[in-house]
Amino acid sequence: MAVNLPSMGELLPIEGIRVGAAEAGVRYRDRLDLAVWVLEEDSTVGGVFTQSAFRAPPVLLAAERCGAARALVANAGNANAATGERGIADAMASCKYLADAIGAADTEVLPFSTGVIGEFLDMEAMRRGIDLALNHANADGWADAARAIMTTDTEPKALSGRFEIDGTQITATGMVKGSGMIRPDMATMLAFLGTDATIAPAVANQLARELAERSFNRLTIDGDTSTNDSFVIMASGKAGPAISSTDSSAYRDLLAGLEPMVVELAERTVRDGEGATKFVTIEVNGGRDAAECLDVAYTIAHSPLVKTAIFAGDPNWGRFCMAIGRAPVVDLDPSKVALFLDEVQIAADGLVAPTYEEPKAAAVMERDEYVVRVELGRGDASERVWTSDLSYEYVKINAEYRT
Amino acid sequence: MAVNLPSMGELLPIEGIRVGAAEAGVRYRDRLDLAVWVLEEDSTVGGVFTQSAFRAPPVLLAAERCGAARALVANAGNANAATGERGIADAMASCKYLADAIGAADTEVLPFSTGVIGEFLDMEAMRRGIDLALNHANADGWADAARAIMTTDTEPKALSGRFEIDGTQITATGMVKGSGMIRPDMATMLAFLGTDATIAPAVANQLARELAERSFNRLTIDGDTSTNDSFVIMASGKAGPAISSTDSSAYRDLLAGLEPMVVELAERTVRDGEGATKFVTIEVNGGRDAAECLDVAYTIAHSPLVKTAIFAGDPNWGRFCMAIGRAPVVDLDPSKVALFLDEVQIAADGLVAPTYEEPKAAAVMERDEYVVRVELGRGDASERVWTSDLSYEYVKINAEYRT
Repeated sequence: MAVNLPSMGELLPIEGIRVGAAEAGVRYRDRLDLAVWVLEEDSTVGGVFTQSAFRAPPVLLAAERCGAARALVANAGNANAATGERGIADAMASCKYLADAIGAADTEVLPFSTGVIGEFLDMEAMRRGIDLALNHANADGWADAARAIMTTDTEPKALSGRFEIDGTQITATGMVKGSGMIRPDMATMLAFLGTDATIAPAVANQLARELAERSFNRLTIDGDTSTNDSFVIMASGKAGPAISSTDSSAYRDLLAGLEPMVVELAERTVRDGEGATKFVTIEVNGGRDAAECLDVAYTIAHSPLVKTAIFAGDPNWGRFCMAIGRAPVVDLDPSKVALFLDEVQIAADGLVAPTYEEPKAAAVMERDEYVVRVELGRGDASERVWTSDLSYEYVKINAEYRT
Repeated sequence: MAVNLPSMGELLPIEGIRVGAAEAGVRYRDRLDLAVWVLEEDSTVGGVFTQSAFRAPPVLLAAERCGAARALVANAGNANAATGERGIADAMASCKYLADAIGAADTEVLPFSTGVIGEFLDMEAMRRGIDLALNHANADGWADAARAIMTTDTEPKALSGRFEIDGTQITATGMVKGSGMIRPDMATMLAFLGTDATIAPAVANQLARELAERSFNRLTIDGDTSTNDSFVIMASGKAGPAISSTDSSAYRDLLAGLEPMVVELAERTVRDGEGATKFVTIEVNGGRDAAECLDVAYTIAHSPLVKTAIFAGDPNWGRFCMAIGRAPVVDLDPSKVALFLDEVQIAADGLVAPTYEEPKAAAVMERDEYVVRVELGRGDASERVWTSDLSYEYVKINAEYRT
């Protein structure tokens, strides 16, 4: 059901990072479901994590352990969330098991889990998986790791990029998983990005935050925020100048080099949204500030009535007006509002545009991808979010998730 | 698809109010789609209306004309919303046509519309419908009016009640329509309640607001708020003492008498929710204030993942935790949270309860109706909202609404 989702293509190795995946059998059978990343000394990890009050034990631990780090372990199928003390102990034990195997300190290993909430981890499977994954770990393990972290994703989503900092070539490889319970609030479900750039611990979290703000924090599939959302950057420090301040040209080059990669990963997440048949960009211009543009964009993107109209390809544009009208924007004047679907203007001054003809809007809505553009006519701020539609398949996937 | 929706039963006439319905053909064919209420002199109308920024022209007009009033006209199939100046002119012309026919002032007639947004009213059909409905208007027209205002409703929803004020018998008959685009914000789509009580204009709006706050403002089907939500009370003043202050025992008796009626109408709206197969009450206790209890309740009630799990009867209770976790409650401590489905405790102290067995929760979720109870463990406030599930049928109804 994915909408124009590109395949992974060639993934570039990152000097200083080995990756391994395994069939641990934590929940799934006969598929990769566990991945490890082993980082050489002097590596740095920065991250940004879900704002849910029910942060899962691995998230609590990973957030605490950002900075200098030596390994990451991620499993799919069981989120180790809402598991309390035992969940914390299990996440710690997984890290210790991996730390002992590679000769690192426990606190230098970060855990990640995704899958069903409210069940305890199968620790025997975790240990077996870590052993197997370490056996397979090598520079070219990224594609297998991208497969291992999938849950309801239809395809693995990963890419590589190269850019320069101060004339030195930097390489990065990133991946994301997640296609439901997706309205990232600081980060998407699980996204990992490795680079050989040299990033000080103090800078790494800020980098992850800024990148998430421009990518994962602008997408929504169903408005639901996971307990396990995490986006982490691993930097092996094998290339480029040491970046120890966010107020440097090297930091800006790094941000500019990584931004198109994370934006593409975020877009792919929506393309692979549960039951998605459309990839829609909601663009809101003319707001007083970015916050109110986002409020309008998300209210449209989360409306079940808008999403079912998008699924049906029905230019029932009153539903867009309804959603704009219920967005929490103070003193919105409907008579200043305009609405476009790609190049077709539907509404002007809050009512149907004189030039509007329904077949033109219907033709846009037949496209796999299009832009819903709203002009609020009250300021200069703009924002955009990406979303998918609400299809029979979304209901089917989520009604049958555990069976 | 409605969930245990009671039939209308016998509707009592209200002295001083005549009701008529007609096949106007505004949009639908071969069904009643227009209703008028004709009130004797000295009647009062109070109302509460949508908070949408895109308030439809009839809503703007009706809100302005609450007070002393002589007639109401409502049509289904076309909401006369996002229609600008012409929409206002059409709503005013409909009122004038009815006012002239009954010898009242234009401003004593209130208009209501529900249906597709963004199209102009067929005024010839409106005039034809008003003529026909006036011809049929009589004391027993309530049931036909309840049918005439339906859109995607599967059944008409109306009831009557009797109670006493100061030893005098008061009679009331009410109706509601609406089964999608339902998260009332001050009132549901269209609800009309007539009574022979004697209510001063100054009190009528406050009464409507208090009743809505206890009924229509506590339900959600899909989280979408209509441009046309209206709840109005017509009081003919034929019985009971004159109620001119909200600070009187007669007002309190009136409120107490009408409250169970509007709560029942609100519940029926959810039972007839688009595609509904379940009627679920979300009860949140132990909050610091009512607002945060409502935030948690609505976050659960609006979560597509919770709603699909309810549809599937799948006790995937992590989804409830996910929704509680993303609710906008400051400093929520998950380790104090408990979760129940009817009598079955699922979570205690933020994780799975020691006594929990999944088949027990699955058995509750097989029921047509049950209560999801959340204990926040941080205060004494409580709230509850009613909601339905997200089924294939919801997608079907809304993907095919205009075809």
